[in-house]
Amino acid sequence: MHHMSSDMQACIDECLRCYQTCQSMAMNHCLEMVGEHVEKRHFTLMSACAEMCRTSAHMMLIGSEHHKATCRACAEICEACAADCERVGDMQECVDACRRCAESCRKMAA
Amino acid sequence: MHHMSSDMQACIDECLRCYQTCQSMAMNHCLEMVGEHVEKRHFTLMSACAEMCRTSAHMMLIGSEHHKATCRACAEICEACAADCERVGDMQECVDACRRCAESCRKMAA
Amino acid sequence: MHHMSSDMQACIDECLRCYQTCQSMAMNHCLEMVGEHVEKRHFTLMSACAEMCRTSAHMMLIGSEHHKATCRACAEICEACAADCERVGDMQECVDACRRCAESCRKMAA
Amino acid sequence: MHHMSSDMQACIDECLRCYQTCQSMAMNHCLEMVGEHVEKRHFTLMSACAEMCRTSAHMMLIGSEHHKATCRACAEICEACAADCERVGDMQECVDACRRCAESCRKMAA
Repeated sequence: MHHMSSDMQACIDECLRCYQTCQSMAMNHCLEMVGEHVEKRHFTLMSACAEMCRTSAHMMLIGSEHHKATCRACAEICEACAADCERVGDMQECVDACRRCAESCRKMAA
Repeated sequence: MHHMSSDMQACIDECLRCYQTCQSMAMNHCLEMVGEHVEKRHFTLMSACAEMCRTSAHMMLIGSEHHKATCRACAEICEACAADCERVGDMQECVDACRRCAESCRKMAA
Repeated sequence: MHHMSSDMQACIDECLRCYQTCQSMAMNHCLEMVGEHVEKRHFTLMSACAEMCRTSAHMMLIGSEHHKATCRACAEICEACAADCERVGDMQECVDACRRCAESCRKMAA
Repeated sequence: MHHMSSDMQACIDECLRCYQTCQSMAMNHCLEMVGEHVEKRHFTLMSACAEMCRTSAHMMLIGSEHHKATCRACAEICEACAADCERVGDMQECVDACRRCAESCRKMAA
């Protein structure tokens, strides 16, 4: 919107989708499953990913040239979260959202 | 997602859409238009609306029973923002997003 | 700061202190203790309280007249969080921060 | 708190102080001063800095190992904001908060 490139709008969409998926799965799935799902390492990564995706979207929405720095950090965290969700298992929705978001953020950071 | 009611998912969608519209229009439209668009009263309301919509969506995503309190506050702020955007003019996209979000939040708060 | 009343600055301080305490204790204490500490009800309340305190502080920082609505919601959530932290036990730091924040927010909402 | 190193607690404090200073000065000082203070470039940088500081503090509070990535991005944005506040002038409080936060974040990112 407002002269935003379609690549940037797509990246905002991926970031907000990944934020929703990670935040909702952490609180509504992991907390129910317990076990490895609430291990500090895994749960913290889910929470960090949700927060970073939300902020990365925000930086693009406000039109900051520094979105490259936040997209770079976001791609790194999303990749780590996807890998950890694969390790824990039963988190495919999250793996997919993180991978798509990481790819989109890498393009924006380039 | 994860046993979330369709009404709640719809409200999350409206909140995140209204957040994006208000945040982006404030920074990319109002700051360019200057004049009334950057009056403290108007710009603060746009910013407050964006922040509250983001938080209201968050409360529903984490499955908090307190989303009723935040949806109530969100509906109030969205209505005020819609009215002020009409007063200032040239903000129809924002008026519409705020009205839809307010209506959806009022239902969730009931 | 910038002509902010001392009552409002004090409320911002309480909100940011309560945000830090709830967020840090949820992630660094509750996730280690497991058991009741990671029950969905308790953990969600801690997370909701942290988010609402952060937003309540934000509304006052931007000088929004709608801080009354957010302080009201914040006081309600802080009281509920304090009560639940007492129920679960071993959360006194959180109980205290929530009580102080609730009292300060009630004054601002009046 | 909760076995957090004193360096990390100091960095959280600087981030939250810089967030408060940038957010409050943007909304309560820049919007009143108008002119260069509400130029898109300057106002966006103030907003980006506030958001990034808030998120950087959050990553440390939740105990994420990825705080290094967010502290790195935060230091970069704080330096840019400090430089732009010096250019615009009459923003010394912001310059100082950004410089201190940048220095603290660089140490955490190392």
